[in-house]
Amino acid sequence: MKNIGIVGASGYTGIELIRLLVNHPQIKITRLFAHKNAGKLLKDIYPFLTGICDLELESFSIDKVTDLDLIFLALPHGEAHKIVPQLLEKKVKVIDLSPDFRITDISLYERTYQIKHTAPSYMQFASHGFSELFPDDIALKPLCANPGCYVTSVVLGLYPLVKQGLINKPVLIDAKSGVSGAGRTLKETALFCEVNENFTAYQTFTHRHAPEMENILDIKLLFSPHLIPMNRGILSAIYIDSEKNLTLNQLIDLFQTFYKNKPFVKVLFNQERPSTNYAKRSNFCFLFLNVYPELNKIVIFSTIDNLIKGASGQAIQNMNIMFGFDETLGLLNIPNYL
Amino acid sequence: MKNIGIVGASGYTGIELIRLLVNHPQIKITRLFAHKNAGKLLKDIYPFLTGICDLELESFSIDKVTDLDLIFLALPHGEAHKIVPQLLEKKVKVIDLSPDFRITDISLYERTYQIKHTAPSYMQFASHGFSELFPDDIALKPLCANPGCYVTSVVLGLYPLVKQGLINKPVLIDAKSGVSGAGRTLKETALFCEVNENFTAYQTFTHRHAPEMENILDIKLLFSPHLIPMNRGILSAIYIDSEKNLTLNQLIDLFQTFYKNKPFVKVLFNQERPSTNYAKRSNFCFLFLNVYPELNKIVIFSTIDNLIKGASGQAIQNMNIMFGFDETLGLLNIPNYL
Amino acid sequence: MKNIGIVGASGYTGIELIRLLVNHPQIKITRLFAHKNAGKLLKDIYPFLTGICDLELESFSIDKVTDLDLIFLALPHGEAHKIVPQLLEKKVKVIDLSPDFRITDISLYERTYQIKHTAPSYMQFASHGFSELFPDDIALKPLCANPGCYVTSVVLGLYPLVKQGLINKPVLIDAKSGVSGAGRTLKETALFCEVNENFTAYQTFTHRHAPEMENILDIKLLFSPHLIPMNRGILSAIYIDSEKNLTLNQLIDLFQTFYKNKPFVKVLFNQERPSTNYAKRSNFCFLFLNVYPELNKIVIFSTIDNLIKGASGQAIQNMNIMFGFDETLGLLNIPNYL
Amino acid sequence: MKNIGIVGASGYTGIELIRLLVNHPQIKITRLFAHKNAGKLLKDIYPFLTGICDLELESFSIDKVTDLDLIFLALPHGEAHKIVPQLLEKKVKVIDLSPDFRITDISLYERTYQIKHTAPSYMQFASHGFSELFPDDIALKPLCANPGCYVTSVVLGLYPLVKQGLINKPVLIDAKSGVSGAGRTLKETALFCEVNENFTAYQTFTHRHAPEMENILDIKLLFSPHLIPMNRGILSAIYIDSEKNLTLNQLIDLFQTFYKNKPFVKVLFNQERPSTNYAKRSNFCFLFLNVYPELNKIVIFSTIDNLIKGASGQAIQNMNIMFGFDETLGLLNIPNYL
Repeated sequence: MKNIGIVGASGYTGIELIRLLVNHPQIKITRLFAHKNAGKLLKDIYPFLTGICDLELESFSIDKVTDLDLIFLALPHGEAHKIVPQLLEKKVKVIDLSPDFRITDISLYERTYQIKHTAPSYMQFASHGFSELFPDDIALKPLCANPGCYVTSVVLGLYPLVKQGLINKPVLIDAKSGVSGAGRTLKETALFCEVNENFTAYQTFTHRHAPEMENILDIKLLFSPHLIPMNRGILSAIYIDSEKNLTLNQLIDLFQTFYKNKPFVKVLFNQERPSTNYAKRSNFCFLFLNVYPELNKIVIFSTIDNLIKGASGQAIQNMNIMFGFDETLGLLNIPNYL
Repeated sequence: MKNIGIVGASGYTGIELIRLLVNHPQIKITRLFAHKNAGKLLKDIYPFLTGICDLELESFSIDKVTDLDLIFLALPHGEAHKIVPQLLEKKVKVIDLSPDFRITDISLYERTYQIKHTAPSYMQFASHGFSELFPDDIALKPLCANPGCYVTSVVLGLYPLVKQGLINKPVLIDAKSGVSGAGRTLKETALFCEVNENFTAYQTFTHRHAPEMENILDIKLLFSPHLIPMNRGILSAIYIDSEKNLTLNQLIDLFQTFYKNKPFVKVLFNQERPSTNYAKRSNFCFLFLNVYPELNKIVIFSTIDNLIKGASGQAIQNMNIMFGFDETLGLLNIPNYL
Repeated sequence: MKNIGIVGASGYTGIELIRLLVNHPQIKITRLFAHKNAGKLLKDIYPFLTGICDLELESFSIDKVTDLDLIFLALPHGEAHKIVPQLLEKKVKVIDLSPDFRITDISLYERTYQIKHTAPSYMQFASHGFSELFPDDIALKPLCANPGCYVTSVVLGLYPLVKQGLINKPVLIDAKSGVSGAGRTLKETALFCEVNENFTAYQTFTHRHAPEMENILDIKLLFSPHLIPMNRGILSAIYIDSEKNLTLNQLIDLFQTFYKNKPFVKVLFNQERPSTNYAKRSNFCFLFLNVYPELNKIVIFSTIDNLIKGASGQAIQNMNIMFGFDETLGLLNIPNYL
Repeated sequence: MKNIGIVGASGYTGIELIRLLVNHPQIKITRLFAHKNAGKLLKDIYPFLTGICDLELESFSIDKVTDLDLIFLALPHGEAHKIVPQLLEKKVKVIDLSPDFRITDISLYERTYQIKHTAPSYMQFASHGFSELFPDDIALKPLCANPGCYVTSVVLGLYPLVKQGLINKPVLIDAKSGVSGAGRTLKETALFCEVNENFTAYQTFTHRHAPEMENILDIKLLFSPHLIPMNRGILSAIYIDSEKNLTLNQLIDLFQTFYKNKPFVKVLFNQERPSTNYAKRSNFCFLFLNVYPELNKIVIFSTIDNLIKGASGQAIQNMNIMFGFDETLGLLNIPNYL
């Protein structure tokens, strides 16, 4: 039984970590930290957790981190890099759901987030937390930089092609996300009446996940994100110039081989209606492969639940890998459909 | 052509006033006031109004109120009573969409809103802005207290019975509203992810519209409001003990007679699916009459669009009455259904 | 390991049974029956189940029912009573999610559903499947009549009071449900554009769940159901005349005592925003207790997920009871909130 | 005053025509035709129209077409071409909202819709009903082929560039639409629970609007449509390779010049959140211009209300043009925002 703490426990990714971990057979949640809600009981904010998780939300300080095997950081950007050094010092494993240790090029990070990174020397201890791509590195390192939600959906859809050197032209990504990706922060653009019955393009060319994708994929891309009036789910449409004129069968082979022993990535084709419903409320990523030979285009739709495979679920998958558990432990809930 | 100003122009009722007034044949909007957004152009906030209304949002001060025939106050409670005296002094007609002049019993107002009313002596100049019930008073008085959204739906459904002395027992009202009733204020409970795919009872027994209803109806009632995950629309279910055992036909007669020359109130019966769609995006109120003789119960469903008949539309109807226009001017858009 | 079959496997309650049972530690789903979709693989209809449940959907016939320990009937009314006798003959336990064996008064059933009941003599083998109320009977009998969704929410909220003889006047129930309660049947009123951004009262006085409630509670009631524009969740507002002027504390005592060892029923009070979010996607029922002494009214809000505690979840809870398992097995997923 | 008839009056585009025409100052709706609902009154189906439009829905036959100046055909594909010849014979102007006369290449039409076109010789009488592009032709011809919703959004966004010969490579269009585009037809994929909280790609490469776009634009394109869980609105993202490396200013000039006297097309730039809200419930089309010089890409977002500018509104605009009215008559409702 491993003892776990969560920093930022009362936000959307925090509460999702709790929801998933409560029934994890090898885990005990022992400490919850929160900033704004410090001093309250978790059940004061989420009364449906009465009797399920009755812990207090404490304000974080490093001396409260005792007897913890691992800590999740569910924080906004710019917070994690301040406390990661102290945590690693204490021999606590860390999974950081913020972007602070995702971009290996520190100057790119600093340009993107417009802040100074105070722990660049700790980047060497961080694994890229794509569970399917770098499990060995994740298992070895004490710090895991859990990827962004859009990034996960896109990288899983492109990596097999990148790995084979099949991407030589800029890739266009038209991605769509449910609203929970924005977290529980108060802002006008997240109000119900502003979002509901509305579909919005935002941060075209400027979304912070684009540098994160380019950092890991090392290709040029145009990233065009959109907001869907619904709570959860990402569907990314990835439009690729196929210089080698790959056939659909070749593409299927390539992906099926690449993801052969990866239980959470499902490769499909000939699906008439690729949709976020496939993965809803599960840790699965579904990839839908299409080839349009008239224009030598490959079109890949990639869908995940942004809060699970795109955040808390993949974080737990990485935790399983770091602890040497079966990577599916506690994560086998199947998609909810409705 | 009458010159009109709006205070609180950038909120939801403000923008709805603008939307409806832009095409009103006898009105010119000449000044817009806002607090938080003062200094911006309206189209900076609502770019779709580019070329339609290019006015600036000014911070309000009484000396800017010149050449205005009427001013709408689309403010939170506790603001209107501070400026109404000065406005009336200037001979500007005022339609107050806030609750400040709705409750004639000042101490009830002060208990309800937990503030001191600074202009109680101006209550005498205020009409109850139920366009169908008190048109003569509305026409005569310089100040109109435009009723609340829930209140409009409930009072239109009960007034014919109250007027005939047919209500002798407490009435139970289970009301449901879309989210725009809460305005554009930032609060956690108005965030998309908190409201969407959720249905909530709130302020059971304590909603501020209950005293407003009791004040006008002079009956006892239990008011139980709920939040629907949608933008607009109210459906109030009104459950009445029918001591006289009224038949459905008697009830229909009573209501059809009462609302005979009232173009915006539609009395229906034998409708299988009373719904907010009937009135959506229109100034209509639909009343659905039902009798359940087994238990001597009358059940009336009342539906309005909370932003139109429940706020800005009824305000314009009252403006038409105060100016001596046809009361339907600028308000004949029919329900949108989809 | 018990072998399980599902009849009506491709509808919403069928697929929800599958979703929940796939991870049940003591169960193996071995046969799926469907009518319209017979001959297809389950994953042809629900491709996200590829690799998770690859069974075929077969057309039902009694000779295919071999080696099954229990069968779920997820059928419309009027179908189950035709096959239950043959199933019981074969010593297969049956959990019927349809209303066919819920109403012990056969003539009331026949008036309500306007069909002839062909197996009234089998009613004696049927338990009322309220897991919290009649577990002993459920454990003993080979047939379980799983209650309706509205009925579950209402009966759990009223039973402790009924049991104590505290209900002497007609009870008013204003209930609201998400759309999945209507199943996957094609009808105009279930189309997205008809339901979305709309809130509807329907079958006022005539909903078929009212007789079912009266049958089990033996009180008079007025049942007024509504449709919420969302997928899942029921919130029932139960308005009770409290002749004994129970205090809130007395009410809390009564309910907490009654549901002391019932892990799926949570009794709350002083909650400002009772909502469907409390129970969403879980098998819990949350009861929110309120007393309004001014009018001697008790108001109880009851919320469940209509597809889980209101259908498939309670069915599995009953299965656990019938097999002598812990009743929570496979059902401990906590509410999803988002 | 012109007398108007509508065939297919009870569907979504039919009812939207009625809603908009009821308040048109120069129009009288005199006959409504419907197939399935023939014999009913319009208000039997849409009770909120009681007192607003009390016409009967008649089954269509050519001899009922008397004293009509113009008839709208709001029919599925394959119906209009059967009756257009008889209508033109009778000297009735026709606006066909179906695709039957949109594609000038008859064999392309027949391949696309898999039916035989029975009136190809009448194609010469049909104008392309893009009100902004071909007003002279629309004014002259007795038959107007009103364009599809996706097509309108895309063609308005591309035509100024096509006209200047600036499109030399295939264009990628990732388009998203609300659900009302699918009409009121019963199908599983249009059920509330299938669409709500779900985002779907569909008919990738195969949507029937792609040939319609290619027919009018004469360029190659990849059309990738998606379904948004909301009632109304289209946002099309148009990704263009800019071989001439147009600057944003050049692009703005080009578009502003092209649409100078077109009141319903608004050209915007530097907008952070292009969204369907801009045009919601109005006849406007908003074009958002962006240039991404790093990759020589132009990205144009185009938004319309699919039922108004994308169907019934543009049809009325075309009617205004055919009758020599001001083209904005009856269409000046401004966007609804909420």
